[in-house]
Amino acid sequence: MTMVSMHTAVAEQVVDAIRSVVGPGPVTLHEPSFAGNEWEYVKECLDSTFVSSVGKFVNRFEVELADFTGANHAIAVVNGTAALHVALKLAGVKAHEEVLVPALTFVATANAVTYCGAMPHFVDSEARTLGVDATQLRDYLARQTEQRSGHCVNRSTGRVIRALVPMHTFGHPVDLEGLLAVARDFNLVLVEDAAESLGSYYHSQHTGTFGLMGTLSFNGNKTITTGGGGALLTNDGELARHAKHLTTTAKLPHAWEYRHDEIGYNYRMPNLNAALGCAQLEELPLILAGKRELFQRYSAAFASVEGVTLMAEPKQCQSNYWLQALMLDAEQANQRDRILEQANAAGFMTRPVWVLMHELPPFSECPRMELTCAQLLSQSLINIPSNVRGVI
Amino acid sequence: MTMVSMHTAVAEQVVDAIRSVVGPGPVTLHEPSFAGNEWEYVKECLDSTFVSSVGKFVNRFEVELADFTGANHAIAVVNGTAALHVALKLAGVKAHEEVLVPALTFVATANAVTYCGAMPHFVDSEARTLGVDATQLRDYLARQTEQRSGHCVNRSTGRVIRALVPMHTFGHPVDLEGLLAVARDFNLVLVEDAAESLGSYYHSQHTGTFGLMGTLSFNGNKTITTGGGGALLTNDGELARHAKHLTTTAKLPHAWEYRHDEIGYNYRMPNLNAALGCAQLEELPLILAGKRELFQRYSAAFASVEGVTLMAEPKQCQSNYWLQALMLDAEQANQRDRILEQANAAGFMTRPVWVLMHELPPFSECPRMELTCAQLLSQSLINIPSNVRGVI
Repeated sequence: MTMVSMHTAVAEQVVDAIRSVVGPGPVTLHEPSFAGNEWEYVKECLDSTFVSSVGKFVNRFEVELADFTGANHAIAVVNGTAALHVALKLAGVKAHEEVLVPALTFVATANAVTYCGAMPHFVDSEARTLGVDATQLRDYLARQTEQRSGHCVNRSTGRVIRALVPMHTFGHPVDLEGLLAVARDFNLVLVEDAAESLGSYYHSQHTGTFGLMGTLSFNGNKTITTGGGGALLTNDGELARHAKHLTTTAKLPHAWEYRHDEIGYNYRMPNLNAALGCAQLEELPLILAGKRELFQRYSAAFASVEGVTLMAEPKQCQSNYWLQALMLDAEQANQRDRILEQANAAGFMTRPVWVLMHELPPFSECPRMELTCAQLLSQSLINIPSNVRGVI
Repeated sequence: MTMVSMHTAVAEQVVDAIRSVVGPGPVTLHEPSFAGNEWEYVKECLDSTFVSSVGKFVNRFEVELADFTGANHAIAVVNGTAALHVALKLAGVKAHEEVLVPALTFVATANAVTYCGAMPHFVDSEARTLGVDATQLRDYLARQTEQRSGHCVNRSTGRVIRALVPMHTFGHPVDLEGLLAVARDFNLVLVEDAAESLGSYYHSQHTGTFGLMGTLSFNGNKTITTGGGGALLTNDGELARHAKHLTTTAKLPHAWEYRHDEIGYNYRMPNLNAALGCAQLEELPLILAGKRELFQRYSAAFASVEGVTLMAEPKQCQSNYWLQALMLDAEQANQRDRILEQANAAGFMTRPVWVLMHELPPFSECPRMELTCAQLLSQSLINIPSNVRGVI
């Protein structure tokens, strides 16, 4: 067999495996599943005329979200980016500081850091979890930083590194035990970007509830959606009160007076979107079961495709399997674009992982550690159709 | 008649006049009117599953909004604050600069300036429009600023004053002719905060279309609502393209690649909210007619209440009469809180205007001119129930 025909074979095998699971295309990468009370709750919301920043659904959504995740408090906001912005502010991130974020993430993680006037500092990931590599990070911080008055300071830039923001890629939990220890040992605040991991558990505890705060997203492409939406999770009552205050323009309670005691944000989730969210939360267990079933079906289909591994949840973790991902072996990595082209041409929407943050123009000058693994992952990951419709 | 009984009489007369127009309470200050295709469009949106950042309703809402306002372009975003933030960025507002905003405004106007790292600089208003006083501002800038290399520089702080953001209070258009001349003569970019003035016209041209950009709000308390929402208006095609880019995470178009070429924002209005907006836009002419009719009825009812004037649209302007407002004569201003207490106790929701910006802790150190008129207005304005339900 020539090289060309072997390469063709791999791409074709991937397309065939996808087709064997999801049927003939076209199939999207991910779309919402509205099979429950969505219409009923949204109509009830419209009928009440309370569609905006006040209403029973937004309060109920927060209570039910706290209940589902086991967090003491949940604060519903307009989207995951807004949640991260406020979480970082509450973590004490100030202008001219640095925040450790993975190079392998969606751009919102890095953007939120800049909204605080701070600078992202990019760290490497590990193939096992697709998230921040705790061991490499520990070694790097030991070399690169020093403690001054209880603050972690970057020796090269002289800036305080305030926080560490791991992200649970595609719903797979990061090494929280390792990262919590790094955060403790280097005086960093840990904030979890759990935008992709609603329904994912690390050692039986829900992701987003380990750090000082965690953030969720309910964008249209997520496991459940509110149209646009996000939330902050925290176990700290005072932080929760402050998060609610900051996300509702920092207005002090009063029957008629408009007095605000700090610079706040118009980040409250509208009641209309929360109505959709309440219905979606009811379906979440079924959706999660469907995503797990889809993983099993893909597992069987890809078992015989050489050079391609389906991403499985890390040990002692339960992933929500938000986006199913293939990892190409090193010798197949140069076939990534061919696979993407053939799969998309065949009507199966697939995509590579995000361009690494330090390769984007706005972040090219930000500090970073060696990103060996992230670079390898960025060349070898492919997301494949992950809808639960037809599965559940 | 003793002073006490005279005072009581004024408050009682106000309550009686409100009751004579809106009927027995309880009556809210403002609530949405959903009498058209709201449910139909929202259901169609849910059925399509396109509830998030992509969909036909958000594109249609933009086209229809541009059509209604006469702006060449409209860009739909999550709320009015986000619209202002992006408009100021596109106006070139940078860190450590100043932006002229009225002291008499909702806090979002000042907050948006700080999101750019800049500082609000508070200016006075006039009783005729409730907006920025162009004559006083011109005199102040002549004394307080100097031109350096084509920039307006605050002599006291040494900082560049980049922009001027008038706000059309309660829907009443500001003196745009006067303010455009001030902006031109002092090299300031004019951005209109038209959050309250959808359906308001200055010399037959829609507010928000005079400056470099204008911003709208569709919060639940506005003339029409999308739950949460806002928009940017501009006649400049390149600015419109850039605004759309910035509000959609600055992602470059590509079939599968996630590459962003600048720091962007997750500010896109969700399709679900836009579906509601499309239905509301259809009803806007009827709502505006109802608000004008309500003004006429209040006019008649308050004609005989001495010491109280109902706010009317400025000459050569057409106000949307979003919030009906009473202005107390100087000798009645000390009765404001008594009126508020009696009206609210009687079930008629009324409120004073916002606490002036420079009196809020986060803005107490910001530069400001003499705020004589704004201070007077803040003591003498009362908003009264402004719903169109029962009128149209």
